[in-house]
Amino acid sequence: MRWKKISDAVIRRLPLYLRVLDELSADPETELISSQDLGFRAGVSPALVRKDLAWFGEFGKQGVGYEVAFLRDELRRILNLDSELKVALVGVGSLGVALTRYNIKRYQEDNSFNLRLAALFDSDPKKIGIQIEGIPVFSIDQIGEKTEELGLQMAIITVPFESAQIITDMLVNAGVRAILNFAPTKLVVPEGVHVANADLSLELQRLAYYLQDEE
Amino acid sequence: MRWKKISDAVIRRLPLYLRVLDELSADPETELISSQDLGFRAGVSPALVRKDLAWFGEFGKQGVGYEVAFLRDELRRILNLDSELKVALVGVGSLGVALTRYNIKRYQEDNSFNLRLAALFDSDPKKIGIQIEGIPVFSIDQIGEKTEELGLQMAIITVPFESAQIITDMLVNAGVRAILNFAPTKLVVPEGVHVANADLSLELQRLAYYLQDEE
Repeated sequence: MRWKKISDAVIRRLPLYLRVLDELSADPETELISSQDLGFRAGVSPALVRKDLAWFGEFGKQGVGYEVAFLRDELRRILNLDSELKVALVGVGSLGVALTRYNIKRYQEDNSFNLRLAALFDSDPKKIGIQIEGIPVFSIDQIGEKTEELGLQMAIITVPFESAQIITDMLVNAGVRAILNFAPTKLVVPEGVHVANADLSLELQRLAYYLQDEE
Repeated sequence: MRWKKISDAVIRRLPLYLRVLDELSADPETELISSQDLGFRAGVSPALVRKDLAWFGEFGKQGVGYEVAFLRDELRRILNLDSELKVALVGVGSLGVALTRYNIKRYQEDNSFNLRLAALFDSDPKKIGIQIEGIPVFSIDQIGEKTEELGLQMAIITVPFESAQIITDMLVNAGVRAILNFAPTKLVVPEGVHVANADLSLELQRLAYYLQDEE
């Protein structure tokens, strides 16, 4: 099922709620959570929590709150995280290696973290064939073949901006439909493919806005 | 000056527009840009471009478009990027080092990129005193002292999640008012301090939503 009209701002908050519910699930005593408490822990107002969740159904009971385990399972289903998703990373430079370590650590420590980095790609012959944290590095010429063979669905791009679009085209042609882009450039993708920009410089520039003196 | 009511969604798009205008500034032939063209290059609808910019004044002329150099300067001013801002990074692990390299490369290649990484901090005695890409690594005990001495205004946090809040408290006490957080945890900050979350796992979880079959 797909909820067509839900804005990305809503989707962006769902993983924050899921993180809180995952943490609470560790404690069997906590069966219920109020929108106040969930909002406080996620850094979102209680009214917005209720509004966001109402897009997807009736999860809470007035005056009682949400059932932690139930809401957690529902959010995982809504976010498509109830089964393992395989992720590719293209560009095994220092950022690519750091993100690989980060992802693998996360995947190993958290049973419910279903995003598994399954293949790395690079154009440097010295890197092709090695493994990083146990993940093999393939040639970018193998993107099509390995995407099908390994069932890769998402990709992280950490190549220089000059190569980002051509790598994107290769990934899209291979069937990848969600891309997390760390290259400082805008990627052009066909409809049905989703790009999230994780360009550090854009984030820092945005943050600079908030340094202005309050009146 | 500060425009109180402008939503973060608007602020988030301004650096995208600025990137387009920076690229166009390299070509002295391009003096004007339409909202159509600016929108296309930034990946935003023309109507939204006009609406976003209208929050800050009358920048365009109907039927003519925006003056590239003027709009660029205005956006830099609005985003507080018209003078250099000094940035700290706390947590010199593999992600911290990768982001340091990325930032320094960006700073060296782009004259107008005014976000300068000026100090690194870590708790590991083996790292304190070394330099990475020419940037010194200080002890986290020196956060207060160095923030004042070097005029650090923003910080990037790449420490494990267990230490993220205590590091945040130290930075906030030292006067830092904008934090880019890579640690997978929610940071609690007082009013007037702004946190942007760059947690990779949250971004990937959000993207997974868009993998669902279209109807």
